Amino acid sequence: MREPGAGRFEIRLSGSGGQGLMLAGKLLAEAAVHDGKNAVQTQSYGPEARGGKSKTDVVISDGEIDYPKATSVDVLLSMSQPACDEYQDSLRDDGVLIVDERLVSDVARDDAVRIPFTALAIEECGRQLFANVVALGALVELTGAVSWESLRSAVLARVPRGTEDVNEKALAVGREAARKVSRG
Amino acid sequence: MREPGAGRFEIRLSGSGGQGLMLAGKLLAEAAVHDGKNAVQTQSYGPEARGGKSKTDVVISDGEIDYPKATSVDVLLSMSQPACDEYQDSLRDDGVLIVDERLVSDVARDDAVRIPFTALAIEECGRQLFANVVALGALVELTGAVSWESLRSAVLARVPRGTEDVNEKALAVGREAARKVSRG
Repeated sequence: MREPGAGRFEIRLSGSGGQGLMLAGKLLAEAAVHDGKNAVQTQSYGPEARGGKSKTDVVISDGEIDYPKATSVDVLLSMSQPACDEYQDSLRDDGVLIVDERLVSDVARDDAVRIPFTALAIEECGRQLFANVVALGALVELTGAVSWESLRSAVLARVPRGTEDVNEKALAVGREAARKVSRG
Repeated sequence: MREPGAGRFEIRLSGSGGQGLMLAGKLLAEAAVHDGKNAVQTQSYGPEARGGKSKTDVVISDGEIDYPKATSVDVLLSMSQPACDEYQDSLRDDGVLIVDERLVSDVARDDAVRIPFTALAIEECGRQLFANVVALGALVELTGAVSWESLRSAVLARVPRGTEDVNEKALAVGREAARKVSRG
């Protein structure tokens, strides 16, 4: 993987509607700004987004971001099989593919990172709606796309009052799962 | 104003954080898809977005949208003075500037459309959080950016259950305010 910080870094979050990926993209972008960088988030609607697929791109850069659409994806998160099928070709050869292990069974790359984000969210945080934050915790641990402290600040600033603790737990669950994968 | 549907049509929604402009952009984009078009929504974070300014761009086109950032804005909505100051230069000469009359007092263009969206939301819908939907109703009435029926469908599909009626009222309040301005 290219190192984040070496110019433009592209992250694509994909899955199906209702998985909270737009919010996850916003949190990543806000964390990047905490880190002193620029970020642009884009989502497409229309034929590309049909069939239950949801996708948002976050481009992070030290400099100005002239072209906000991801063109050569460094990190692809796929939380559904149709999204993985659709977008895995957009990933760079040296990019990182991260998938929800229970929701994406068929992956073209041998080096894909498989973590059961949704199952972990249910088991550890009580509700599957935390799967997006679990996935963010893992993605940032695996890639260093943003600093951990900035991610944590962005999440805590944005989530509904009273849910700070469970969101912080979701981040930690994702981070821990990523560490096990990395070691494993 | 250029007619929507003649190729690429760019809408910029600007104001301050918490005014619901990201959601408004999403609703516009979804309405455009209802109309059979493509749409891309972009938001920038970082220096450009600092100082309490919030902005989202929605590009609508019959064809593929290669460059998702707005470059020549057809319609600019400004819900705060700093946002209007920052973005009014991005508007085409034949573009339409729509501002919240009570929140934006200083406008460079004589032909700006001034409607008190936030005051109307409070008076007619009971809460200022409906100002974004009031503004959408007016923007669509003034510009025809998307069809009314598609806008209504997008809003009703997306808002929290139980708030359909008040959101439909907010749309109608915005539409009526725009009609009065157009006639005036």
